[in-house]
Amino acid sequence: MKIYVVGIGPGNREYMTPQAVAAIEESDVVVGYTLYVELVKELVKDKEVKSTAMKQEVDRCRMALESALEGKTVAFVCSGDAGVYGMAGVMSEVAADHPEVEIITVPGITAACSGAAVLGAPLIHDFAVISLSDLLTPWEKIEKRLRAAAEADFAVCIYNPKSKKRRDYIDRAAEIMSCAKSWDTPCGYVKNIGREGEKAVVCTMADLKDNDDIDMFTTVFVGNSATKVINGKLVTPRGYQGV
Amino acid sequence: MKIYVVGIGPGNREYMTPQAVAAIEESDVVVGYTLYVELVKELVKDKEVKSTAMKQEVDRCRMALESALEGKTVAFVCSGDAGVYGMAGVMSEVAADHPEVEIITVPGITAACSGAAVLGAPLIHDFAVISLSDLLTPWEKIEKRLRAAAEADFAVCIYNPKSKKRRDYIDRAAEIMSCAKSWDTPCGYVKNIGREGEKAVVCTMADLKDNDDIDMFTTVFVGNSATKVINGKLVTPRGYQGV
Repeated sequence: MKIYVVGIGPGNREYMTPQAVAAIEESDVVVGYTLYVELVKELVKDKEVKSTAMKQEVDRCRMALESALEGKTVAFVCSGDAGVYGMAGVMSEVAADHPEVEIITVPGITAACSGAAVLGAPLIHDFAVISLSDLLTPWEKIEKRLRAAAEADFAVCIYNPKSKKRRDYIDRAAEIMSCAKSWDTPCGYVKNIGREGEKAVVCTMADLKDNDDIDMFTTVFVGNSATKVINGKLVTPRGYQGV
Repeated sequence: MKIYVVGIGPGNREYMTPQAVAAIEESDVVVGYTLYVELVKELVKDKEVKSTAMKQEVDRCRMALESALEGKTVAFVCSGDAGVYGMAGVMSEVAADHPEVEIITVPGITAACSGAAVLGAPLIHDFAVISLSDLLTPWEKIEKRLRAAAEADFAVCIYNPKSKKRRDYIDRAAEIMSCAKSWDTPCGYVKNIGREGEKAVVCTMADLKDNDDIDMFTTVFVGNSATKVINGKLVTPRGYQGV
């Protein structure tokens, strides 16, 4: 009894590892959010597909567990990395009482890595990854992490900078980080990474505020004190200037 | 004039993206640390190979630039992700005076993601990635980041926990994080991820000290206050208990 929780990367097959492809091919059942299943549709032909709308994450885990308990091999597909804001954790929690079901995490390219590559190299050195979604985390904790990351001079990668309901969270995040990061700090953001309409912008931390271009499909990158722009790319050195 | 800085992942081809394979195949010259070039040797047949020993990173960048300026397409291979403690940044710095040379970062699966997958799902929520190598970073800055990450309750992924010269850095890191993380905090480490001799261990933060099993090829994971062990896997919930 096996459930692969598979990170398919940003969506474009060019980013998807052979390990992820093999896990889906080996499976009898493919479970996932409709959009993600769509991204791998050529792999799921002739397979049982169980997809649900957004936000029904625990339901999807239960569906996956059900199929596994019937003896089927399941591929639970997630965008990016199954282990970074992905479903690998919840799946293990839902299957906690069934040690006989093996939960195997198949890593993928997460937006921190795919987005950083599009911008250049903003995460070359120590960095923090923070989601601004307060659906499952108290905002006070998010604020504390933003402040700590700024004060310790981490480069920061921000997931879920906005949502329909939360238009101003990225503005508030920039304000909080301004306690220790200059408003001139080189930053960047990438929309629709590895998908149609991909767009990358290099800017400053000040430009992150009141920015209608940043939406829920955007990943934001904030440099550390040594980050600079070189020939239009966002680049963080490895530490001491080695060059 | 093009230089692909290519993240090949942990080493095992199962982790290497089609984008990385294509970049190497498209290139005339492959540059990299001898071990990494070896990992992709079946892709570099009939190509010009320029490899050097460890630590000559700037030299490798200059070799890559030289070949690019001769009009050759270059693949500069790095293990893991070219953009996370990889060469994408230095390469841009070395090529700064040559805007005509396009530097393209090709992301790969970094040890934070591949190691987390082996252990289960320790990095599901906000996390910090910190290297304990003080070759290019003052130790005081590393300490500050460890303390900030602990105080803000980040899960933490530690690169370079030890080296031949630095046997006790992971011990010191655990001591520093104990300012805000319990010694019972669920942790784990993975050696030789995706390579021969891969070994994963789930333990507590106390077990990270005086641990001869942890070496320079090990990636260490420290949980946040909600991280738990479920059926032998290291799992960080998404935030509020959603299950």
